[in-house]
Amino acid sequence: MKLATLKRGGRDGTLIVVNKALTRAASAREIAPTLQYALERWATVAPQLHELHERLEQGELTDVFDLDIDALASPLPRSYQFLDGSVYLHHMEKARKARGADMPPNYKTDPLMYQGLSDRFDGPRDPMRLPDESLGIDYEAEVAVVVDDVPMGTTADEAASHIKLVMLLNDFTLRTLTRSELPKQFGFVQAKPTSSFSPVAVTPEELGDAWDGRKLSLPILSFINGRAMGRANTGRDMFFDYPQLIAHAARTRSLSAGTIIGAGAVSNLDPEAGYACIAEARADEELKHGQASTPWFRFGDSVRIEMLDGAGQTIFGAIEQRIQKA
Amino acid sequence: MKLATLKRGGRDGTLIVVNKALTRAASAREIAPTLQYALERWATVAPQLHELHERLEQGELTDVFDLDIDALASPLPRSYQFLDGSVYLHHMEKARKARGADMPPNYKTDPLMYQGLSDRFDGPRDPMRLPDESLGIDYEAEVAVVVDDVPMGTTADEAASHIKLVMLLNDFTLRTLTRSELPKQFGFVQAKPTSSFSPVAVTPEELGDAWDGRKLSLPILSFINGRAMGRANTGRDMFFDYPQLIAHAARTRSLSAGTIIGAGAVSNLDPEAGYACIAEARADEELKHGQASTPWFRFGDSVRIEMLDGAGQTIFGAIEQRIQKA
Repeated sequence: MKLATLKRGGRDGTLIVVNKALTRAASAREIAPTLQYALERWATVAPQLHELHERLEQGELTDVFDLDIDALASPLPRSYQFLDGSVYLHHMEKARKARGADMPPNYKTDPLMYQGLSDRFDGPRDPMRLPDESLGIDYEAEVAVVVDDVPMGTTADEAASHIKLVMLLNDFTLRTLTRSELPKQFGFVQAKPTSSFSPVAVTPEELGDAWDGRKLSLPILSFINGRAMGRANTGRDMFFDYPQLIAHAARTRSLSAGTIIGAGAVSNLDPEAGYACIAEARADEELKHGQASTPWFRFGDSVRIEMLDGAGQTIFGAIEQRIQKA
Repeated sequence: MKLATLKRGGRDGTLIVVNKALTRAASAREIAPTLQYALERWATVAPQLHELHERLEQGELTDVFDLDIDALASPLPRSYQFLDGSVYLHHMEKARKARGADMPPNYKTDPLMYQGLSDRFDGPRDPMRLPDESLGIDYEAEVAVVVDDVPMGTTADEAASHIKLVMLLNDFTLRTLTRSELPKQFGFVQAKPTSSFSPVAVTPEELGDAWDGRKLSLPILSFINGRAMGRANTGRDMFFDYPQLIAHAARTRSLSAGTIIGAGAVSNLDPEAGYACIAEARADEELKHGQASTPWFRFGDSVRIEMLDGAGQTIFGAIEQRIQKA
């Protein structure tokens, strides 16, 4: 099924179910007022949501409305926990090279992961407001999963069953600030501002064969001002998968329902796959031409992130944001 | 006023007001069911809570009950954001020396801050459950503030007015894991497990002259298995104050109501002040005697953190936790 959240209804919005074609929707508030509420009671609530979604799909509901993506918040408008990994080693190598940093020790045995801002996510069509154009504003096109309650010490094999939803993620990054913030070793506070997610979150079975229970294998498309940046396959060159990331996070903590786990900017070794962030494009340009030509975002620029199924239909809807001065 | 949260009532518990002596309490649920709810509507809710607290203090309420600290969750049982600074440079120097790390660049102009686990805090008397005794289990006695909604770009002078509550914080740290996790530069995920907070959160005016609008100046007491570890003054040797930490955090993000800002393990230059964590004691022992003698926590050990006012009365109640195997 596909779930989304209307902005109206407070800081957590109002949960709706959305048909596969992303054209029609119905309120789910009688079952679960918010997605956070649903995730905390997933075993009992999910079957009811599935039934509602099925009835919407079959045209059996009367109280339906046209889906207006501008009226959507992120599926979780806020979350108690957002942990983002960096599992595409090709991205890590280029990002680190670009800021003059070495690869971290044990990067092949111990996933990189930071705890990110989660008290407020932007909606998929909200402007991205930042105070200063000179911060090296970049996007990262990612796939994220949402889990239910995960006990401390959960193994990777056990973790797979806790994955309840999949979304696209735009993880904005301020590259100028990573240079000063990361050497302090305490992670990102200023360098990772508000993220946004795709219009809908989907349950894994919506993804068919593209979801193998541990990762999603489809091209993630991104565009800057309408120009294609890349179409890297999210299942390729993925060094750690989602269950491994969940197990890593849960080693010394439980993860509460609604925790979002990202896997970092997608990056394929195949140069034809292009880019899922500006930093890698610039790193390649510097290598080839001695200097970067793709600029960081300027105010007024737009970014679009989307994923299509085998039939060319959008799965999650597109994240489309314009960068603006705060 | 003093506020606390009963465990009963779901993941966010039930808000209560507590008298100054921490002996009697009354439900605040008719005004605000949870502390998160209150913080999101502070301007309208706080005056009503103050009035309820005043009536409790004056013995005008009939529906009161004895305060049972074992029945309390942390004042915020969970939060959408927990940002912890490290502003006692003396602690930073010793902690880094102990793990063989240099002081970070710009540490005197740019506060150190990480985003910590906030999806579930332990209550002030809950056991601290961890999978393994060999992780270098340590505590950090800290003071934390809670803010209402803080807009992006808020200056330090503006930030002071957003501080609504003050609490004690036990920021457990797994020192063995910091050695492998921090060099990856992405901050703490495995090395900072669940934190806990004092039984009550207090509004700044409860602190009298000890709160100057930017910091709290009183000794923070900590004990391991009943043995005093230290009594460092929280206002002394504090290189950045709370408004500066808030402004740092809000440079590229807004902070939503209920965000918790800690200042790191308290540490005074005066050796008579003792310690607010084990790591510093061990660092001094190594320097003096060639090896550390204070052990990291073992299962069964207990830690107590408290702060007394000028009359020797507990302000926040004590955090008292026993370390247990998960």
